[in-house]
Amino acid sequence: MRTLAEVQQEIDHLIKEEWQSGYWSPLSSLARLTEEVGELAREVNHLYGEKRKKSSEAEGSVAAEMADILFILASLANSLEIDLDTAFDAVMAKYQQRDATRWKPAE
Amino acid sequence: MRTLAEVQQEIDHLIKEEWQSGYWSPLSSLARLTEEVGELAREVNHLYGEKRKKSSEAEGSVAAEMADILFILASLANSLEIDLDTAFDAVMAKYQQRDATRWKPAE
Amino acid sequence: MRTLAEVQQEIDHLIKEEWQSGYWSPLSSLARLTEEVGELAREVNHLYGEKRKKSSEAEGSVAAEMADILFILASLANSLEIDLDTAFDAVMAKYQQRDATRWKPAE
Amino acid sequence: MRTLAEVQQEIDHLIKEEWQSGYWSPLSSLARLTEEVGELAREVNHLYGEKRKKSSEAEGSVAAEMADILFILASLANSLEIDLDTAFDAVMAKYQQRDATRWKPAE
Repeated sequence: MRTLAEVQQEIDHLIKEEWQSGYWSPLSSLARLTEEVGELAREVNHLYGEKRKKSSEAEGSVAAEMADILFILASLANSLEIDLDTAFDAVMAKYQQRDATRWKPAE
Repeated sequence: MRTLAEVQQEIDHLIKEEWQSGYWSPLSSLARLTEEVGELAREVNHLYGEKRKKSSEAEGSVAAEMADILFILASLANSLEIDLDTAFDAVMAKYQQRDATRWKPAE
Repeated sequence: MRTLAEVQQEIDHLIKEEWQSGYWSPLSSLARLTEEVGELAREVNHLYGEKRKKSSEAEGSVAAEMADILFILASLANSLEIDLDTAFDAVMAKYQQRDATRWKPAE
Repeated sequence: MRTLAEVQQEIDHLIKEEWQSGYWSPLSSLARLTEEVGELAREVNHLYGEKRKKSSEAEGSVAAEMADILFILASLANSLEIDLDTAFDAVMAKYQQRDATRWKPAE
């Protein structure tokens, strides 16, 4: 059960120590995030929307695409020295003060 | 220092208990994710790309946009009963076995 | 009634002659495209999905967001010397040969 | 040399007459647009960013991905009875009145 901080540390260790590499530029990381969100969109549309999948397409996984998004999001955060846990505190505080009616499903 | 599982639990509590609400459909959550990634793109382009910001635009925050992405990503995971920690195990295993050269910045 | 080629020419004239400027880098244009798709997502989710709009939010327009996407798409094409009309020939040929069943709405 | 209106008409004919089918829901079309933008992001990052492509990956084409985006954008416009040419008039008028300095590349 890793913390958000540990997610960021694991990625930092992988990239710097195991790969002996470095972070991409912010615009390249953003392009990669866009690509990963596109792959999630394909899976979600296949399962819950109207797109029919070619039988030859490899079986995809919504969970795997979400983890890929988390990976690139945390990588970008690392490269910009952003602490996701602190940032998440702020977004939770924002939502706790906000009128909940905007989130209610349409009836 | 919250765990990934606690991120998901906090959101579930917020939506179900505080807001007395429920999760959106997967396609609506995906559209919201697309919107939030677009807001991050705007901020990243402003800071690291070539887009000039109108002076009247509210000061944005890359960290806040990243936390918004994490929020909707974890909400979608909750609605589909996906455990992000388990999914992240798999993505880390995938990357640890993969040739690192693909991630190296161009020289 | 402008042609696709005229769309590209009008943008080229605007940027080079009227603005005395130049094209962005491909990664900056892509980030802008991501931002504009996010704005369309917000409008579509508001009108056809489950997101409720704050009353204070400016009235948006799906058509305007689509035109913004077309503008940045054609700008990126210009910067890479891509002719959209020729590229569209190829995609139409691809779809005309493809089994139509993938596009049919679920019943 | 097709007009924007002819782009929309060709797609309408393909979907309704050749495929004897219909348009997707707006949220499914948006998800498909997100997927196609992700594919463009992959190609642009490969050519102009820092992502290295696996040698096993099929050779992609930036032009083809842009045409796929145009196809789904025009399909969504058709399904909502939006005329892209009229919408593009409005965006050109907006940009012609806007201070050009926002578009200038950083020096």
